[in-house]
Amino acid sequence: MKIYDSNTAPNPRRVRVFLAEKGIQVPYEQVDIGNAVNRGPEFRQKNPMGTLPVLELDDGTYIAETVAICRYFEELHPQPPLLGVDIKDRAVVEMWQRRMELGLLLPIADAFRQRHEFFKGRILQVPEYAEVQKKNAESFIAWLDGALADRPFIAGERYTIADVTALCAIDFGRISKIKIQPEQKNLTRWHEAVSSRPSAKA
Amino acid sequence: MKIYDSNTAPNPRRVRVFLAEKGIQVPYEQVDIGNAVNRGPEFRQKNPMGTLPVLELDDGTYIAETVAICRYFEELHPQPPLLGVDIKDRAVVEMWQRRMELGLLLPIADAFRQRHEFFKGRILQVPEYAEVQKKNAESFIAWLDGALADRPFIAGERYTIADVTALCAIDFGRISKIKIQPEQKNLTRWHEAVSSRPSAKA
Repeated sequence: MKIYDSNTAPNPRRVRVFLAEKGIQVPYEQVDIGNAVNRGPEFRQKNPMGTLPVLELDDGTYIAETVAICRYFEELHPQPPLLGVDIKDRAVVEMWQRRMELGLLLPIADAFRQRHEFFKGRILQVPEYAEVQKKNAESFIAWLDGALADRPFIAGERYTIADVTALCAIDFGRISKIKIQPEQKNLTRWHEAVSSRPSAKA
Repeated sequence: MKIYDSNTAPNPRRVRVFLAEKGIQVPYEQVDIGNAVNRGPEFRQKNPMGTLPVLELDDGTYIAETVAICRYFEELHPQPPLLGVDIKDRAVVEMWQRRMELGLLLPIADAFRQRHEFFKGRILQVPEYAEVQKKNAESFIAWLDGALADRPFIAGERYTIADVTALCAIDFGRISKIKIQPEQKNLTRWHEAVSSRPSAKA
């Protein structure tokens, strides 16, 4: 078993943080995204989407998509639970996890890839959309600060995958100058708390 | 228990098709998205994102986000399984489900909302991005036709949530003139098969 990884992209970090929280060790193999190795024909045999991370199982199965990989390990190693503790809680955690993906990670990723040189020639870029998504991310961050007034973590009383996604999104926002504002006290407190966990270094 | 629904939007249809496949009946309440009732303060008490569908539980909990709702019902009523049958299969199904969301539904939704009058004044629109996402969706459809050469359904031998997402995405593409081409024989065969199931009328 191994994980095809990149130290600079946000989605591979989500898996590393998730596994660190669970204390699971899996060998990582770096893929050179700077030279677009992930977009070449050999890597696309593993994942036709050309994205990272990808988990390779011992039977040769490839599992791509961050949350699919996380769910696989959650089922293999349920403790500590990061996807919820019962039927209703798992639905609530998935709701918050998806809000972090659609409201935070996606606009932050677009703010980068729709404009940055790194993606020139790799995708059809629309720089105006990068600007709009930056604004959308900033609006969402302001809303999220209010939502965190009554609880320590994104989905409630426990640290979950929703915190992993939000942390990796927020930290990746720096490259596009998207950040938590000093007056956003709840989000500042949350970010300090999740960043001080050992998993944040993964 | 009830579900806040809209008969014209693609995400509420995903839940209706999913529940129809399972033979689960839940009362639906239509929300007037034409008059933006979903974006008003009262509905945002239920779902701050202002999106549909939303599941209201008997204890007053609101579960938003299509796949969170589907997973809730999958756990309550495991048969027939639509999210996979064992640990590895659930990861494979989730991978394909997410590919259908990110590669198909998202660009098809953007091709509509980044340009169409319906979203004018509701979001910051970038019509050029609608064009780009239309092209991205068409490229993905061409790729997906090839991927379906060796199997009946999106994630393999069984009908799963990945088929639900792909069906609702493809059908919603019509409004933006995104469609399966006659020479795409595998996808044409798949679309006929999934459209002929009674659930497709949900």
